[in-house]
Amino acid sequence: MRSQLCFRCSILCVFPVDSASTVSGLMSIFHEQELTETVHDTNGHGYLATFVGKNGRVAILRVHSHGLVTIDLQCYEEDNIAQLDNLLNALEKKLKVLLNGNITRIKKLPAIVRGANVDRYWPTADGRLIEYDIDRVVYEEDSAYQNIKILHSQQYGNILVLDGDVNLAESDFAYTQAITGNGKENYAGKEVLILGGGDGGILAELVKQKPKMITMVEISFMGSVIDGCKMYMRKTCGNILDNLKGDCYQIFIEDCVPLLKKYVQEGRTFDYVINDLTAIPISTAPEEDSTWEFLRLILDLSIQVLHPSGKYFTQGNSANLTEALSLYEDQLEKLSCPVGFCKEVVCVPSYLEQWVFYTAWKK
Amino acid sequence: MRSQLCFRCSILCVFPVDSASTVSGLMSIFHEQELTETVHDTNGHGYLATFVGKNGRVAILRVHSHGLVTIDLQCYEEDNIAQLDNLLNALEKKLKVLLNGNITRIKKLPAIVRGANVDRYWPTADGRLIEYDIDRVVYEEDSAYQNIKILHSQQYGNILVLDGDVNLAESDFAYTQAITGNGKENYAGKEVLILGGGDGGILAELVKQKPKMITMVEISFMGSVIDGCKMYMRKTCGNILDNLKGDCYQIFIEDCVPLLKKYVQEGRTFDYVINDLTAIPISTAPEEDSTWEFLRLILDLSIQVLHPSGKYFTQGNSANLTEALSLYEDQLEKLSCPVGFCKEVVCVPSYLEQWVFYTAWKK
Repeated sequence: MRSQLCFRCSILCVFPVDSASTVSGLMSIFHEQELTETVHDTNGHGYLATFVGKNGRVAILRVHSHGLVTIDLQCYEEDNIAQLDNLLNALEKKLKVLLNGNITRIKKLPAIVRGANVDRYWPTADGRLIEYDIDRVVYEEDSAYQNIKILHSQQYGNILVLDGDVNLAESDFAYTQAITGNGKENYAGKEVLILGGGDGGILAELVKQKPKMITMVEISFMGSVIDGCKMYMRKTCGNILDNLKGDCYQIFIEDCVPLLKKYVQEGRTFDYVINDLTAIPISTAPEEDSTWEFLRLILDLSIQVLHPSGKYFTQGNSANLTEALSLYEDQLEKLSCPVGFCKEVVCVPSYLEQWVFYTAWKK
Repeated sequence: MRSQLCFRCSILCVFPVDSASTVSGLMSIFHEQELTETVHDTNGHGYLATFVGKNGRVAILRVHSHGLVTIDLQCYEEDNIAQLDNLLNALEKKLKVLLNGNITRIKKLPAIVRGANVDRYWPTADGRLIEYDIDRVVYEEDSAYQNIKILHSQQYGNILVLDGDVNLAESDFAYTQAITGNGKENYAGKEVLILGGGDGGILAELVKQKPKMITMVEISFMGSVIDGCKMYMRKTCGNILDNLKGDCYQIFIEDCVPLLKKYVQEGRTFDYVINDLTAIPISTAPEEDSTWEFLRLILDLSIQVLHPSGKYFTQGNSANLTEALSLYEDQLEKLSCPVGFCKEVVCVPSYLEQWVFYTAWKK
């Protein structure tokens, strides 16, 4: 499979550019590299020409009337990249001369690669374009609930990606630390409930502290998060997922809602409830969205099974999603059982954005 | 100034695509949105058409012969983005039908913005495309030595960018901590030399520990890093840069090389030398490159002024630049005075890549 590279370069000028003289000055450079132009009518929106050359090369030149020149260059991966670099450099050099140095900014962006076997682009929760150093797909399955990928990154180790969202990498002990209280809690002899947590990071960390019992509830097993992580995220989970039961832990493979309801009915409580199910929804219509409804249900049940002196830990979302975070805080204030809460902003290495974590307790 | 948005979408298929039927199926969607096509001859490299519409809209459709369909859509910032979203969605929906669901991957990337007042694209040291959440330029100066920018990010606070490289943000206490020994050192009563460090982060942190004297050498003052940081990076430097001299510190505004040479001549030593001048060069030709020569000179002089039981701290570079890091380690082994060293990988929030820090000592 040949993938396509797309280089792009933009030049911002201090004044409107005279298209005619700029374009004629650049034309010879395109021709030298055997690119043939088609000039398009833009109905008064500046100059636009497309150039087609050998090996499937395509360039798009736009001289926008307000002083912006953009060049897009597409080629195949196996093309002569040095030659295309030369083309961009020659265009840049010529533009500097043509515009008499009246240039505010010249920017050449790294190529975007499309159609590659491995997808390196995983935007942040706040919608920014991010290229990861991912070099191979380690695991991929579609469970009944979600698409599960484990991707290898040179710097972050294996990264768990659920339905296209970066979930946890082997580098991300900071996540586990944040969602378990930053090392300030004492789990020895305590009853702990983990909702989700299929990557095993929280469980592996907390068993070291000799709790009385950790109950973890993860929805699926075969072809699931647990399945992938116990093979390929061992820097995160160690050997804790090899057995569903140990001295001080048990993993239930089931939906947590009926289990939580049963615990409520039995009057069972936990010293710590750690909700590692999902980030809070980005949608800002909590009254209509079923994800918000699910979140409220889990939250309400979790607080009901929380011991009066217990703590509830959960992730929030990107620190930039202030509206979604504030809606979540509204939910916290509407619970049948009143809670207090605090939050902190944490840097989880593979997220490439600051992340908010919450602690809640019964008032 | 109108900036240009460029959306792109790619569809990877499980088998070669029949251009003719695919293209004819998509044409009506482009026509509905009043885009007029020009079909180009690609000399056997698949189908290529450019579409020009109202408001300066341009779309490029390529059906590559090996099973990749790419669509690039350019528009102006003030255009009707919802309408263009509809166009992309309609194309995606139609392609799913035309290709009978034989699709490996559909990817729509966030738009790249060109020509905006604030540049949000600052690639990592290992050359990956990264979009920051930068919303305004706080400070910009060209000193005699470099271009200095301070840019505001919602999540990282103000970010110092030197010659286009992200240097330090107000969120990056992890950097200061790593380059001062991760809180494991005791600076009380010690002699400390800081080379560079103009953002004041290291100085502000170490004065708290009551050292005997911190000598900091920064090359320029007016229109410089110090100047910008003391105004706009106060979460990093506090008020420490307001005065060049305090109870236990002094800042010299001069080139550190003659000063280091003078200290060598006088036989003066320091318990800690912290080199915060620059990351190690990415160039992998250390014998030819003047940056490497500068690095070796500073390293050699620094080790000479290091007390026999002292420690030398410095940053390396991106953890992914293994070749450059290994060349740096070669330099460490070639010094006139033999040194031991260790390194660690640290997550500095605003870097969006893992960073290597070194500690060296006299053998």
